[in-house]
Amino acid sequence: MKFPESLQRLLLAFRRLPGIGPKSAQRMAFHLLERDREAALTLAQALSSALSSIRRCERCRMFAEEALCTICASPTRDAGVLCVVESPSDVIAIEESASFRGCYYVLHGRLSPLDGIGPVEIGLDGLDRRLRDGSLSEVILATSATVEGEATAGFIAGIARSSGVPATRIARGVPLGGELEYVDSGTLSRAMTGRVSVRDDETQF
Amino acid sequence: MKFPESLQRLLLAFRRLPGIGPKSAQRMAFHLLERDREAALTLAQALSSALSSIRRCERCRMFAEEALCTICASPTRDAGVLCVVESPSDVIAIEESASFRGCYYVLHGRLSPLDGIGPVEIGLDGLDRRLRDGSLSEVILATSATVEGEATAGFIAGIARSSGVPATRIARGVPLGGELEYVDSGTLSRAMTGRVSVRDDETQF
Repeated sequence: MKFPESLQRLLLAFRRLPGIGPKSAQRMAFHLLERDREAALTLAQALSSALSSIRRCERCRMFAEEALCTICASPTRDAGVLCVVESPSDVIAIEESASFRGCYYVLHGRLSPLDGIGPVEIGLDGLDRRLRDGSLSEVILATSATVEGEATAGFIAGIARSSGVPATRIARGVPLGGELEYVDSGTLSRAMTGRVSVRDDETQF
Repeated sequence: MKFPESLQRLLLAFRRLPGIGPKSAQRMAFHLLERDREAALTLAQALSSALSSIRRCERCRMFAEEALCTICASPTRDAGVLCVVESPSDVIAIEESASFRGCYYVLHGRLSPLDGIGPVEIGLDGLDRRLRDGSLSEVILATSATVEGEATAGFIAGIARSSGVPATRIARGVPLGGELEYVDSGTLSRAMTGRVSVRDDETQF
């Protein structure tokens, strides 16, 4: 005795999602079939429609429905400053902080040679072309403050240097609202060595 | 700046799955769009096909593709013994233990009045008809050994009593291979009060 074939296929399909094992797949499939068939229909349609309409922006590799994403297509953005991020959600996060009016370049990952993710897999060939075409005045390295993120930023900084484009790294230090006694020692040590002159710091006291 | 509309719809559709929050939905959607578009297509097709072909067996409410599930349709099963379980996966688990040759009745839930799940929601009206039609010699209550499972079993035992069908409850005690020092005290207490005469016990020493 096994589940009917179409149910087994559904269970296998759910298990191809990241982080979903046999129990979660069963829970999802039973929930949809028993309690919310409309959600199953909605999901099937959303998948098909996203597959046919979502692609990468030709300039920045952000998810887009047109050839260019809304940021690259906007005439009000400064196309001379490029912020390099690891993931599309980082773009949304920076946009929500309203602290940046330039354009982005989305890597969709970070360098991880052991997993077979090299420069080409994260689109550094395209970034190299952008850096050499003379249109950029600054490249901001906004990859994660993790080991892989730092390695990726260092690698891109090397490309930028050879192209003559100034590269900057987002500041790392104590997060706003962070009480020192709860900040981890690595962050604290980084905040000490990376201290800035009060005159240079633009913070308003 | 937000994600393109079809991507936003996909994120919302994933969030309707049980146990999936905004971060998991994003992880799934990005994974499918970036790394495994074929899995997305497979999932969309599996959902549509399961929606159109999976229904409940008319006799036991198990998932089936025909009017009767393979167990109810089989001439070799004893239709006089009915094993009542909470979920379709319980049927698969009991079938894998190869310890039962009767038929099943799947509740698809358990009594939970606070959540609005009463006797009708778990199909006890249909079970009542089966109990009264004179075809059953025994009903085995194989609901979970949880508070709701015990309450559901107790409720069904009442219906069975009024229909004159003998009801039994699956044995609760120390699991096989369970070392006593690691068994919880509730289980141990149940195993002590539910002890059986060595003569009655069919275990081979």
